[in-house]
Amino acid sequence: MAEANPRDGFFSMGQNTANIPMQLFAKNRQRLVEKLKGNSAVPGGSVVLLQGGGDQGRCEGDSSDVGPVFRQESYFHWTFGVLEPDFYGAVDLATGRSILYQPRLPEDYAIIMGHIPSAEEIKQRYCVDEVRYVDEMSDHLKSLVSGGNLLLLEGPNTDSGKTARPAAFDGMSNFQVNRSILHPEIAELRVIKTPEEMDALRYANKISSLAHMHVMRTIKPGMREYQAEAAFLHHAYFYGGARHVCYTCIAGGGASGAVLHYGHAGAPNDQTIRDGDMVLFDFGAEYYCFCSDVTCSWPVNGKFTDKQKIVYNAVLRANRAVLAALKPGVSWREMHLLANRVVLEDLTAAGVLTGNVDDMMAVNLAGRVFQPHGLGHFIGCDVHDVGGYLDGHPERDTQPGLRSLRTARQVEENMVFTIEPGCYFIDFLIDRALQDPELNRFIVADRINEYRGTGGVRIEDDVIVHANHTELMSVVPRTVEEIEAWMSGDDSFLNQKHPSQ
Amino acid sequence: MAEANPRDGFFSMGQNTANIPMQLFAKNRQRLVEKLKGNSAVPGGSVVLLQGGGDQGRCEGDSSDVGPVFRQESYFHWTFGVLEPDFYGAVDLATGRSILYQPRLPEDYAIIMGHIPSAEEIKQRYCVDEVRYVDEMSDHLKSLVSGGNLLLLEGPNTDSGKTARPAAFDGMSNFQVNRSILHPEIAELRVIKTPEEMDALRYANKISSLAHMHVMRTIKPGMREYQAEAAFLHHAYFYGGARHVCYTCIAGGGASGAVLHYGHAGAPNDQTIRDGDMVLFDFGAEYYCFCSDVTCSWPVNGKFTDKQKIVYNAVLRANRAVLAALKPGVSWREMHLLANRVVLEDLTAAGVLTGNVDDMMAVNLAGRVFQPHGLGHFIGCDVHDVGGYLDGHPERDTQPGLRSLRTARQVEENMVFTIEPGCYFIDFLIDRALQDPELNRFIVADRINEYRGTGGVRIEDDVIVHANHTELMSVVPRTVEEIEAWMSGDDSFLNQKHPSQ
Repeated sequence: MAEANPRDGFFSMGQNTANIPMQLFAKNRQRLVEKLKGNSAVPGGSVVLLQGGGDQGRCEGDSSDVGPVFRQESYFHWTFGVLEPDFYGAVDLATGRSILYQPRLPEDYAIIMGHIPSAEEIKQRYCVDEVRYVDEMSDHLKSLVSGGNLLLLEGPNTDSGKTARPAAFDGMSNFQVNRSILHPEIAELRVIKTPEEMDALRYANKISSLAHMHVMRTIKPGMREYQAEAAFLHHAYFYGGARHVCYTCIAGGGASGAVLHYGHAGAPNDQTIRDGDMVLFDFGAEYYCFCSDVTCSWPVNGKFTDKQKIVYNAVLRANRAVLAALKPGVSWREMHLLANRVVLEDLTAAGVLTGNVDDMMAVNLAGRVFQPHGLGHFIGCDVHDVGGYLDGHPERDTQPGLRSLRTARQVEENMVFTIEPGCYFIDFLIDRALQDPELNRFIVADRINEYRGTGGVRIEDDVIVHANHTELMSVVPRTVEEIEAWMSGDDSFLNQKHPSQ
Repeated sequence: MAEANPRDGFFSMGQNTANIPMQLFAKNRQRLVEKLKGNSAVPGGSVVLLQGGGDQGRCEGDSSDVGPVFRQESYFHWTFGVLEPDFYGAVDLATGRSILYQPRLPEDYAIIMGHIPSAEEIKQRYCVDEVRYVDEMSDHLKSLVSGGNLLLLEGPNTDSGKTARPAAFDGMSNFQVNRSILHPEIAELRVIKTPEEMDALRYANKISSLAHMHVMRTIKPGMREYQAEAAFLHHAYFYGGARHVCYTCIAGGGASGAVLHYGHAGAPNDQTIRDGDMVLFDFGAEYYCFCSDVTCSWPVNGKFTDKQKIVYNAVLRANRAVLAALKPGVSWREMHLLANRVVLEDLTAAGVLTGNVDDMMAVNLAGRVFQPHGLGHFIGCDVHDVGGYLDGHPERDTQPGLRSLRTARQVEENMVFTIEPGCYFIDFLIDRALQDPELNRFIVADRINEYRGTGGVRIEDDVIVHANHTELMSVVPRTVEEIEAWMSGDDSFLNQKHPSQ
């Protein structure tokens, strides 16, 4: 006998993993109904219809019968929390009722895939009001849409350049369809997190933090970078129930740390980490489609050199300056510039740069040389969560660094961000800067050349903006002293009280 | 400074992982040229053109900017061994020369993705004759195709029901194109493995075997099934350099073992494994797109009960009977039936079945009740490797069990198969059989009912058919005595000589 289904009413992977209540999604649907009811462009009797994700092959162009473990499309997850592929889901705005449409599977499918849940079982599992089969959907929707529209999701993802895929089904031509109203409304709702979503994100961060700490004590000089990835994935899954990471693991040792998205198939974390190297490990566990995104930088041999401390402490001070300044009402763009300024100040104090920091800021020295990426981004069901450049909010900047910001919005309560300042030594950018009279007057060439090939430092945390404080969800050894102590086997970090929590 | 690129001329993940020579792909291309030269339907001056795989999102319908780690499409891998997405590759049949076309990436891409390899570097890495950019391809192909055709890959995958995607590119309408010649020829070549491919498959099997043995000593009663998946993945990656598995991990504890493709997103290996349960762990590591596929079944508490031994030993005897009988000239269909027969014999000897085994075989009792899947399949760059039902070979059967065979071909030297007999207790099939007078006369209902809910046993090995012996690549504790000894901490299995190797 199988044990009672552990997923009725909540999701859990058992052991010491988190319980995520299905109430989270009911609340999201309720928020969606209220928001759309407040939108005068929505005709009465309208129904929201979303199409869940489907299975896919191993790569674009693959024709084999295998593919990655299915991971739900994030808008659909946010609204319904369904684990399985090929569902549709509707929310009736008139009544607030939610309906899932499940694919009808042949009886023999049970031999291969296991018990086929009945409509009643799906209803219990996901706490919706009604469950039907996809082949009944067109007729059923007809009975719901009374004079109104089907509201479908279509709109740009400003990180990928892709477009959210509107639901499509046989019989759709019999409906009045609107593809423009839903996207900005649901994207905006995803920007502001509920207490239940915060709990899920806290848990994802807890898994990642503990797994990063495990990696710090596992990886030794002479190992390959991918062994850090392997150690992280294992800890997050075996102890935390996280089957997925929410982005490809970036396991940079030495010079690889300066490659922002290192770890892809063409550079698969396959270099040796040598004694004396800094590492930059950017790993984020995902639990039930809730993301975390944490980067740790540390010396693989457990002791910072003075030269490493300069860069590391500059980036840490930038991270902590943003953490202290972040609050409702500030602009995310200003936070980015604050982090840039702190790094420039510290590099100047250390003699790597020379001159006036205001002048450096005026020519965007940081964005053009040291941190060619944004300070951070929203995080939620996607690691780069949606809603960064919705209409009515500041547009994307055009300058290096700033243009990579995934949002330039004014910060609001209950937004969740990553804070991830960095400082890298990228030959291509250093060479260009040394040729550029606007920039080279600030650079002490001999000093910066000492850092070539050392990679870079990024310190990335995930935070929740509350009304009166900012909560740090990722808790790992961060100061030079904390890192050196933890790596030497001293467990006192575990018993520390962490001020921002 | 980055270390010298370890991939020039071979692929390796360093440490103690295998070196796979690029010569493997050169030989495959050479075999392809020879085979096509022997095909009178190919016009002179023809050129083979394949399109490599591309990146994709997290699921079908996803619009975010993340997705799984790129894994090359298998035909392209077989021919060129290229790790990166968005390549094309050509083989000029007149000269035998090979050309890779790489995507042209913007200079700034280096900041995100790292050093952009030059054409010369790609040529060194993959040992092809020439490297160009994709945007030069159409013109360059024009210079190669002199009166001949572009031979593109299009044809059915008989496991997935999908169709291999023929290459497509701007300017293709200027070429004479043939989409029918290439597929059966290249699929047939993939069926017969070269010595270099065998070495790669041996290494993938070695990783999987050692990781399975690690799992045997890690998983204890009370743990969740996914912890076995996590332990396997970690061992295969950390120690073996295998970033991918070649199919979703099936980690069945107790009743879950009877679900053939358990472990998918809707049944994510999340049940508790209880004292007294058998487990069925079907895990296969993949190294550089070379697959392995190994299933181990064992009692989670380390000691078989007598009831468990009956089923386990029946399946093991079936596996070993096939291993002994497998040789060039036999039919794979006959091997399937041999395995079925052995299981029925042993269940009869144990009193779970009653009657004459020939009569049971005549009504396909095994396929209809105990093993509703095929004996095994080709394995290579795909776990279910291609070429199972090419024209000129036996067609797919229609009976349960047999119809699931992924090939019914006559066995040839240098084919690589999985041998994976099983015996499951699936309520749905048992209930149906007990109602069916053709079947129920053989079934001792009280005895079979004792096995309900216990799951099943599958014992899966990967083998190479040589002229005079069959080589067992997967080496794990298999007998009851070996398993119990290994799980109790006795290491003597490591020092044993394994007869079929």
